Amino acid sequence: MNDILALRPDDTQPTPLYLQLARNLETAIHAGQWKAEQAMPSERSLSEQLGISRVTARKALEVLFEQGLIRRNQGSGTFITPRLEQPLSRLSGFSEMLRLKGFVPGSQWLERDITPPTHEELIRLGLSPTDKVARLKRLRKADDTVMAIEMSTLPASIIPKPQAVGDSLYAFLDSIGKPVVRALQHIQAINASDEFAALVGIAPGTAMLLMTRVGYLEDNTPIEVTDTYCRNDYYDFVAELRR
Amino acid sequence: MNDILALRPDDTQPTPLYLQLARNLETAIHAGQWKAEQAMPSERSLSEQLGISRVTARKALEVLFEQGLIRRNQGSGTFITPRLEQPLSRLSGFSEMLRLKGFVPGSQWLERDITPPTHEELIRLGLSPTDKVARLKRLRKADDTVMAIEMSTLPASIIPKPQAVGDSLYAFLDSIGKPVVRALQHIQAINASDEFAALVGIAPGTAMLLMTRVGYLEDNTPIEVTDTYCRNDYYDFVAELRR
Repeated sequence: MNDILALRPDDTQPTPLYLQLARNLETAIHAGQWKAEQAMPSERSLSEQLGISRVTARKALEVLFEQGLIRRNQGSGTFITPRLEQPLSRLSGFSEMLRLKGFVPGSQWLERDITPPTHEELIRLGLSPTDKVARLKRLRKADDTVMAIEMSTLPASIIPKPQAVGDSLYAFLDSIGKPVVRALQHIQAINASDEFAALVGIAPGTAMLLMTRVGYLEDNTPIEVTDTYCRNDYYDFVAELRR
Repeated sequence: MNDILALRPDDTQPTPLYLQLARNLETAIHAGQWKAEQAMPSERSLSEQLGISRVTARKALEVLFEQGLIRRNQGSGTFITPRLEQPLSRLSGFSEMLRLKGFVPGSQWLERDITPPTHEELIRLGLSPTDKVARLKRLRKADDTVMAIEMSTLPASIIPKPQAVGDSLYAFLDSIGKPVVRALQHIQAINASDEFAALVGIAPGTAMLLMTRVGYLEDNTPIEVTDTYCRNDYYDFVAELRR
């Protein structure tokens, strides 16, 4: 209840009340005030508890809806959207971050095979053409929402049995004494192919973020190349820059 | 000449010679071995100086071409592509980075006006609805290549005369004692609108990177919102991640 009161807009400020409320709600969402399974306060309860008009409450929720921060479930109210706020400086786990917000992170394997490397992989991982790689391809989910397609390639010498890899690749690598401690990540925009569009449920050609990560062991050996094709509406990559 | 010899592939290594050469050339390009106006060594000179076959040299250059690192100018040879390798941790200048590689950075102004703020800007800059903003819109160029569209919005109280802003917005802010010292940058993928596609010379709908930056003064006042629509093939955003 007190948490809700902290959202109250300040009518001595020149900024319109609905924009103040929208900003306060946005801050509260980012801070984790509501979890995945928890309905947001309704227009009516915001209006009554904060002593503001229904119109102000409605317009504030509309702003959040347009920003993709909330979504409406038929009949059951308004809920936060699964969203990965990923600082571009930490190798932070997908699962860990979603769990904090109350979503159930999940993976659906599409492929776990041993295959020959592509030229690109051969260069990135410093392999010889006769070496093989473990190829891991999966959908990344939050509850039932497909957020991304992730394709990892590692030397088969490190992962001879790709079927043994569970939900967390990094936990697996830790368990075999090959932790990735550092990674370089490149960011690109790509148009979704027909295949990828169908997998994540968007129209073909829609812009997606492609993160290409090369992961290194403590001794600087590259052991992982991962391409993650992210649904733009579910990922929020943030970098803090300093002069 | 000695620089060239350092590119020589090692035939005792299992990695194919052309891939080794491609990797060595890539490293040399990133390190700035060739500048914008300088032709890369030709297939023939690579072959003769490194004692490798013409086929190996050709295939190595082909790899760089496919990666978009080099381009061929009719009759005058092979040159490096303008490319902004931008670490996602530093507020580094567009101009500064291109100059280091020998390109001539430039701006073409599309708009320098005083206008009312949008709702989004009003929130981000903490303005009141009666406040005005300075709106700066321009093309960012390297030599004659349009690399990005940049749209900055600042309170009109800070920039009452937008026509006074020159090539560097940050240099201008420094000169009036309002330096941006920190920024938060969000990264998204978007489909190019017809207008933007025409401005940067790509097909409508092509995926572009949209960087949204909010810049702060030393006292944490937000004074700048900049949207940069980047041609994907000319920007290489890189983040180093640690666990």
